[in-house]
Amino acid sequence: MDNFSFYSPTYFAFGKEAEKRAGELVRRFGGSKVLLHYGGSSAKKSGLIDRIKESLANEGIGCVELGGVKPNPRSGLVYEGIDIVRKEGIDFILAAGGGSSIDSAKAIAAGALYDGDFWDLYSGTPITQALPVGTVLTIAAAGSEGSGDSVITKEEGMFKRGTGSDLIRPKFSILNPELTQTLPPYQTACGITDIMAHLLERYLTNTKDVVTTDRMIEGLLLAMIEESPKVIADPDDYEARANIMWAGMMAHNNSCGVGRSQDWISHDIEHELSALYDCAHGAGLAVTFPAYLSYVYEHDTSRLVQWATRVWGVEDDKEDPKAVIFEGIARYRAFLRDIGMPQTLGELGGNEQDIDKLAHTACYGNGRDGYLRGFVELNEDDIKQIYRLMI
Amino acid sequence: MDNFSFYSPTYFAFGKEAEKRAGELVRRFGGSKVLLHYGGSSAKKSGLIDRIKESLANEGIGCVELGGVKPNPRSGLVYEGIDIVRKEGIDFILAAGGGSSIDSAKAIAAGALYDGDFWDLYSGTPITQALPVGTVLTIAAAGSEGSGDSVITKEEGMFKRGTGSDLIRPKFSILNPELTQTLPPYQTACGITDIMAHLLERYLTNTKDVVTTDRMIEGLLLAMIEESPKVIADPDDYEARANIMWAGMMAHNNSCGVGRSQDWISHDIEHELSALYDCAHGAGLAVTFPAYLSYVYEHDTSRLVQWATRVWGVEDDKEDPKAVIFEGIARYRAFLRDIGMPQTLGELGGNEQDIDKLAHTACYGNGRDGYLRGFVELNEDDIKQIYRLMI
Repeated sequence: MDNFSFYSPTYFAFGKEAEKRAGELVRRFGGSKVLLHYGGSSAKKSGLIDRIKESLANEGIGCVELGGVKPNPRSGLVYEGIDIVRKEGIDFILAAGGGSSIDSAKAIAAGALYDGDFWDLYSGTPITQALPVGTVLTIAAAGSEGSGDSVITKEEGMFKRGTGSDLIRPKFSILNPELTQTLPPYQTACGITDIMAHLLERYLTNTKDVVTTDRMIEGLLLAMIEESPKVIADPDDYEARANIMWAGMMAHNNSCGVGRSQDWISHDIEHELSALYDCAHGAGLAVTFPAYLSYVYEHDTSRLVQWATRVWGVEDDKEDPKAVIFEGIARYRAFLRDIGMPQTLGELGGNEQDIDKLAHTACYGNGRDGYLRGFVELNEDDIKQIYRLMI
Repeated sequence: MDNFSFYSPTYFAFGKEAEKRAGELVRRFGGSKVLLHYGGSSAKKSGLIDRIKESLANEGIGCVELGGVKPNPRSGLVYEGIDIVRKEGIDFILAAGGGSSIDSAKAIAAGALYDGDFWDLYSGTPITQALPVGTVLTIAAAGSEGSGDSVITKEEGMFKRGTGSDLIRPKFSILNPELTQTLPPYQTACGITDIMAHLLERYLTNTKDVVTTDRMIEGLLLAMIEESPKVIADPDDYEARANIMWAGMMAHNNSCGVGRSQDWISHDIEHELSALYDCAHGAGLAVTFPAYLSYVYEHDTSRLVQWATRVWGVEDDKEDPKAVIFEGIARYRAFLRDIGMPQTLGELGGNEQDIDKLAHTACYGNGRDGYLRGFVELNEDDIKQIYRLMI
């Protein structure tokens, strides 16, 4: 196991009607005037925004609204948010929504206190200060509610870049599974896929002797496999929603990823898809991850056999580990298909003719040197072959 | 799943030589003069105390030492610590040791700012303020390094009482698995037993639909079953020590216990044993828990079958769930025996003739009304029968 530091100081308020605690929690964590940042009309129509504003008003906390966050959140709205924060003297950013609203809120929180273009903070300049951030989560997916990570899409060129700092980790996150019940099944399934991908990115390690975190990841994956079909069959299944919501937080607050190398190549490959085709991140991962696994499995067959047997219940066969692994991949793919996820590039709105461009950007974009490195090291040709496996 | 709040803001510095960060971390969390609180001579002889003092000195942080914490830490030393803190103007309590040193440090931290007898805070008066606490952990066991809990033994009458508050949750905890390598095998095994008991106390719930936390607990138990025999066979197995150390923290920071009722009756039954016989808490649990399970299993056979099959690998038998459960208990008992734990009251230094007294104190001590409540509700006669199962 590698040496590590772990710090997860987010306060979680979990359960029915938990959004009524928004005002109390902003107050507790030092806010007096809030930028309430959210996405489309659903949060407004459902009454959620009004309930949050009422809770803030009850505590005498001022509030300025900024809606309009899109999936794969854009730099343009971040600039707008930073302007509002500075003009209005706002001291707390409260996101209501999924990973996109939260990531956008984090960018505003850091950008508002940065004396320069906030995009610098997504291009290598470390974050040194940020306004406090809180969240009211409405989609179990990104894990952004418990992480110090944020990914933003630059509109000029449509490329995605991420940053990370404990300074933008939410002070509190309100997790009410009821709020996820109105999500369309497709978005619910995208969230499920993303949560499972966060676990699998951590599972694909080259660090030896990581039994505790291995077992935690396997346990969380087993819970996802058990609970996910229930919410697809019945969107109002509160209990399954609650289990998925907590698993989504645990998947990404890194308590099951400490002390081990992690992968994240599939995320890099997927980011090119959602940037170019503006598809949902989870849908892109559903197409990417099985293709990736079937390309790289030889790097560590015993780890992939462990995954297939413990997580997918494949019977072990010492004579034929490849068959065991591919049965695991087949079950993973079938699971994703059954919850309504796409299987191919075409279903994502993608095109075979873009593969060269996708692979090139993945390997050379963002100052990369022609390789993606994680569980394995892949060059542009490898990445092309993985994209071809998605056809 | 029940509504819950979860807040675990402890900073963890994990790995080899991590104690060298003590000064930096005390500084980060606002300390300028430390009470360094520890147990017996081993921390001194091993050079740990000197290394911590050097790290503090490097940051210009003052330090007053208070050693002498005993297992089942006593109220007397807490009073002494409170006096020193007040006289010396100390603003940070740093514990070096296992759960006993940490629990004692927490009591001093809260007691020093309390205008009255600190024992009030262990008798129902809530903690409203406390000095910050940090820890350098040397025994993977109690989970006190990541929790807001503390248990102290009152010397007059030798009875144990606990308290809990986020205010006494450590600001940071330094977890270096190397520091646990010098522990005698018996103490190592006591720690293992305690960690597994913390998981099982959470597993025994009456809350339905808690798949995510069930799977996390099962995963952590499987890791403990895999890693524990390795450290008993080879005390210098750093990797197994590291896995156990992280599992011990995760077992008790409550991320796998949220949203569900928990049990803790076995802890109550055990506390009477370690208070009366001054045996190690873990050893007491090794005798208590199998006896307890074999007495209460009928309350929820499907949960106990789930435990036996998933954690202990017992083959399911729908015709005979009792046999499945008792095979699970037998494997649990054999595991504990194999790591060197006692099996009977006699091995703990206990005596059959004390059973009436033990059961009476368990049921009526601490203002109790004659019952222990958790997974089940037990009266004095039930408790006697459980103690008898330990003969």
